[in-house]
Amino acid sequence: MRINHDGVTKPKGFLACGRYTGLKNKRRDLAIVFSEVPANFAGVFTTNKVKAAPVLRNLEIREKGGKVQAVVVNSGNANACTGEQGLIDNQTMAQTVADTFNIDVDTVVTASTGVIGVPLPIDKIVEGIEKSSTFLTGDRQGAIDAASAIMTTDTVPKEVSAHFMIGDKEINIGAMAKGSGMIHPNMATMLAFVTTDLAISTELLQKAMSESTLDSYNMISVDGDTSTNDMVSIMANGMAGNEEITEENEDYEKFKEVLHVINMELAKMIVKDGEGATKLLEVKISGAKTKDDARKMCKSIINSSLVKTAFFGEDANWGRILCSMGYSGADLDPSGVSLEFKSRFGSIRVLEDGVPLDFNEEIASEVLKGSAIEVLITMKDGDASSIGWGCDMSYEYVRINGDYRS
Amino acid sequence: MRINHDGVTKPKGFLACGRYTGLKNKRRDLAIVFSEVPANFAGVFTTNKVKAAPVLRNLEIREKGGKVQAVVVNSGNANACTGEQGLIDNQTMAQTVADTFNIDVDTVVTASTGVIGVPLPIDKIVEGIEKSSTFLTGDRQGAIDAASAIMTTDTVPKEVSAHFMIGDKEINIGAMAKGSGMIHPNMATMLAFVTTDLAISTELLQKAMSESTLDSYNMISVDGDTSTNDMVSIMANGMAGNEEITEENEDYEKFKEVLHVINMELAKMIVKDGEGATKLLEVKISGAKTKDDARKMCKSIINSSLVKTAFFGEDANWGRILCSMGYSGADLDPSGVSLEFKSRFGSIRVLEDGVPLDFNEEIASEVLKGSAIEVLITMKDGDASSIGWGCDMSYEYVRINGDYRS
Repeated sequence: MRINHDGVTKPKGFLACGRYTGLKNKRRDLAIVFSEVPANFAGVFTTNKVKAAPVLRNLEIREKGGKVQAVVVNSGNANACTGEQGLIDNQTMAQTVADTFNIDVDTVVTASTGVIGVPLPIDKIVEGIEKSSTFLTGDRQGAIDAASAIMTTDTVPKEVSAHFMIGDKEINIGAMAKGSGMIHPNMATMLAFVTTDLAISTELLQKAMSESTLDSYNMISVDGDTSTNDMVSIMANGMAGNEEITEENEDYEKFKEVLHVINMELAKMIVKDGEGATKLLEVKISGAKTKDDARKMCKSIINSSLVKTAFFGEDANWGRILCSMGYSGADLDPSGVSLEFKSRFGSIRVLEDGVPLDFNEEIASEVLKGSAIEVLITMKDGDASSIGWGCDMSYEYVRINGDYRS
Repeated sequence: MRINHDGVTKPKGFLACGRYTGLKNKRRDLAIVFSEVPANFAGVFTTNKVKAAPVLRNLEIREKGGKVQAVVVNSGNANACTGEQGLIDNQTMAQTVADTFNIDVDTVVTASTGVIGVPLPIDKIVEGIEKSSTFLTGDRQGAIDAASAIMTTDTVPKEVSAHFMIGDKEINIGAMAKGSGMIHPNMATMLAFVTTDLAISTELLQKAMSESTLDSYNMISVDGDTSTNDMVSIMANGMAGNEEITEENEDYEKFKEVLHVINMELAKMIVKDGEGATKLLEVKISGAKTKDDARKMCKSIINSSLVKTAFFGEDANWGRILCSMGYSGADLDPSGVSLEFKSRFGSIRVLEDGVPLDFNEEIASEVLKGSAIEVLITMKDGDASSIGWGCDMSYEYVRINGDYRS
């Protein structure tokens, strides 16, 4: 397995483009990912009770279990809380793709991201889609344009790819994502689009994606909010030519492993580019009672505004970490907790079996200067472990979110 | 009933003082509240699994159900995550009060607030307690000194009092609280100390306080973190001379009503003085399916960093409010939600039965300039309602919490 940063056009038979339609000021705002042949489809969607129009429609598509051939995404407007008109606009968006590329409307997946509660400027989107057909390409340009077009407050496009062998067939996986604000570990936590030329049944594609999501996208947080629009999707078009995977054999395990690496990589890229983030936090808990307890504590730590601001201030305020573990809902014995901070500048142990160590604050400050910090927590409650990714909270976070719409 | 801002020394037989012991730089850091006669005691404590030493000891005192005569509080150090030594130091703190005032150690309630994980400077506290005996007074000075001594990042002391009649007896209630960071609606949410000269059984005192807490301290949030040290306590010394309340009669209801007003008032004062807060938010939900759903949605809104930063930016981004209702865990039909903002500058309706209104952004901006903003939400799921209080999130919040320990 090799990890690269090619995007959604890396697997065979996938084309993409990113266009400017005028939803966003001076930036690309419409992405289309197209498969030359119908592909199996799987998705994981937000658990928010307030679901955006595209999420509602995609849930129906997933329910039917049919193939899909295109994904169309606009940024700049979430088409959420837009009532009946939002559903109509979303259907128009899908229909326009179907008409433009001469495919069935039920094979078109839609996604939107941006401001909530403002009617979708559907005319601009329709015009954009109609004009996009000649720009679809299977090269790097198509992928990078698409990855750029789905960005909102992201500062960099996010792409990951990998390839591996099944027999003599090379299998490729490509992916792009957008993240930034509203990233929360309560479900598929942002927009991520994965493509692969693997041949695999819809059922197993869904299983692999759902399971991987639990320990990747669901273990990151920027600000604790679960969006109305979050979704992770994958299209598998089978063009690699391998024998279709229909059971959980060795090939399935191989795919699942690579897919999980891709998802974790994207998840980390999203957190690293969190709104106003200056530091990537990687929280590793071992020795927890159950996997669920371990996940809960990891999530609670990376969600705490007090922990996040302390890291922004490069302050070794480990008490806030223990505190957030305590209110996570997880079962824990505080007297068995040990805690260490680690970065490229070194490491420092601050708590041993629940007892604070008289550590050197200067060394701690030095360690916390790192732009990527590991928080290593060992416990004595059991054998379960988990990893979560978060970022610090800065002045910039407040500035961006105090003035997002204007 | 009249609401005033006298503090804990207002009820008969209560004395207090606030002293400087050197835990905090140049500010008072030790408060003692003393009842001339043993008083019935009730308390509500943090649900955080990581409990500070004083919380653990107070839980035992409440469990025993005996009377208490003094509360001693230090600020500047939380005595949380301090291991075995923390328990010993906390017991020493109680024992010193017992020795100094010649009362039983089991009648001394303790509380600490401040930085977590640093050993309590117990020598300074012991010296402070020993020197404090001559400063205990039953006048305003004692109350205000005590209220000042429990502050951490609070910018103003918080005191509320009220009196009402039972027969020909005047009953007084006094209270003080500290809040600011780490205020979260997951339980008794900060430090609050209530005194009353009412005669009432311990059982009913606990019942009234527990029930009131659900809709007062538990409905506020500054940053979503539930502290290791949160507690609300009340002492009732019976010196008003009323016949002891031992059943849920009219007198009980009268007391409960006044107590709830006191608690709500303190809760609002805490939120208003949240770290870096510039605006008080009052979220009112009606028409929810159940009381629990209504509370969940109120809490979710006031906990959302995205909602809080939007208010800081005076941005009518109501979509984030609907979004946070959606992931609150409450059952809701988004298509029945209407939303209005209101302040002393006017009001503006932005959502009607789930459909966004084409509102005037200038008027909305004007309304959101208010320092106290009501968020009025009506739903069509049922008859339940709830109110929650929060504050905006500013640059100042990040500054304070990025540099709390130093």
